[in-house]
Amino acid sequence: MKMRDIAAAADLSPANLYNYFKGKHELLFFCQDNSLDRMLTALRTARSAKASGAEKLRLVIESHLRCVLDDVEGSAAHLLTSNLPAHLQRPLIAKRDRYEEGVRQLIATGIQSGEFVACDAALATRAILGALNWSVRWFSPEGPLSASQIAEEFSYFLIRGLMPKPSAFRRRGSARKLSREVGGVIPRAIGTQTSSD
Amino acid sequence: MKMRDIAAAADLSPANLYNYFKGKHELLFFCQDNSLDRMLTALRTARSAKASGAEKLRLVIESHLRCVLDDVEGSAAHLLTSNLPAHLQRPLIAKRDRYEEGVRQLIATGIQSGEFVACDAALATRAILGALNWSVRWFSPEGPLSASQIAEEFSYFLIRGLMPKPSAFRRRGSARKLSREVGGVIPRAIGTQTSSD
Repeated sequence: MKMRDIAAAADLSPANLYNYFKGKHELLFFCQDNSLDRMLTALRTARSAKASGAEKLRLVIESHLRCVLDDVEGSAAHLLTSNLPAHLQRPLIAKRDRYEEGVRQLIATGIQSGEFVACDAALATRAILGALNWSVRWFSPEGPLSASQIAEEFSYFLIRGLMPKPSAFRRRGSARKLSREVGGVIPRAIGTQTSSD
Repeated sequence: MKMRDIAAAADLSPANLYNYFKGKHELLFFCQDNSLDRMLTALRTARSAKASGAEKLRLVIESHLRCVLDDVEGSAAHLLTSNLPAHLQRPLIAKRDRYEEGVRQLIATGIQSGEFVACDAALATRAILGALNWSVRWFSPEGPLSASQIAEEFSYFLIRGLMPKPSAFRRRGSARKLSREVGGVIPRAIGTQTSSD
C-alpha cells in the first residue's frame, strides 16, 4: 500500500498527509499505536464496569471489532503489518502483549469465580483475539453486515464457549429475528489476501 | 523470506530446492495448494464420518491446526501470504472458498438438525477459521504446547459455543488434568509480526 492509497482511505491529500508524518512508517506506527491505545482504554473500562465477566468480555469484543473494522487507523494498521523497522515495532508489540494479558486476566477471573468453565485462559484469549483479528481479512464495508452486527454474533458465539450453562446468555439484540440463520452471503472469502505493500 | 530460509526450514539445500521450483512464487503456490488439498481431504473425511456434527467439527479443527502448525508447507504458506501474482492466487482463493463453504455447510447442517444452536453459520465458520489461522502468528514449535494440545483446547472452546447444552461436550483427553487452568505461558504474543519477505 502506498501513501497515496492511505491518503485516499483517510480522505486526505497526500501532501496533507506528509504534513503530519515523515513517511509510511511513521504513519503506520501512529495508526497502530492509536488503535492499541483505544483498545486498552476499552479493556480498562470493561474491566472496571459493574457487570458480569460475560458482559465485560462482550464490551471488549465489541470495541475490538469496532476498532479494527470501523476505524481507518485500525484497518490501515492491520493491512500494513510487519513493515515496520524493529525500533517502531517493539513498543507496539509491548502494548499488544499488555492488551492480550488484560483479556486473559478477565477470562481467568471468570474461571476462578466459576462464571466460566475450567479452561486454558491464555488459549481461550488467543482463540477469541484470533477470530476478531482475522475479521479484517474478510470484512467488507460494502458487505451485508455492519461491524456491530458481526460483533453481536461473534460475542454470542465466543462467550457461549466459556459459559457452563450458556442458555442464559443471549445476544444483546435478542429480539432480532435470525432469518439469516443458515444463509449468509459471503462477500469476501476467508484468506482472500490483501496486498500488504 | 528468502529461498535460502525456506530451504533451511525444509531441510534442503537451496540448489536442491531450485531443482523442483522455478522460484519463490512456484514454491509458495505449491505449499499453499498442497496445504489446501489436505484440508479439503480432511473436511471430506470428517463430513462422511459416522459421527455427530460436533465430532466432525472436531476432526476439521484438529486437521486444520495440524496443517497450519505442524507442516512445513502450511507454515510456509501462511508466512508468505499475499506475495503471489494474480494468476497463481486465483485458484488458491477458489480452493479456500470451497473449504470455507464446506465448513459452513457442516455447521449449517448441525443447526438445521438442532444439534447446534440457531446462529449465523457463515459467521461462526469465520470465527472458527479465524481463530485457527491466527494461531500461526503466535505458535512457536519451541513453546510449551504442541499443535495437538492446542487443537484439543480450541475444539473444546469453539465447539462448546455452538452447543445448546455444552456440558455434555468434553475434551477428547478429558482425563488430562487442567493444571494450567489459569496459567499458560505466553511464548509469543498475538500480533507479533513475522516478516513476510
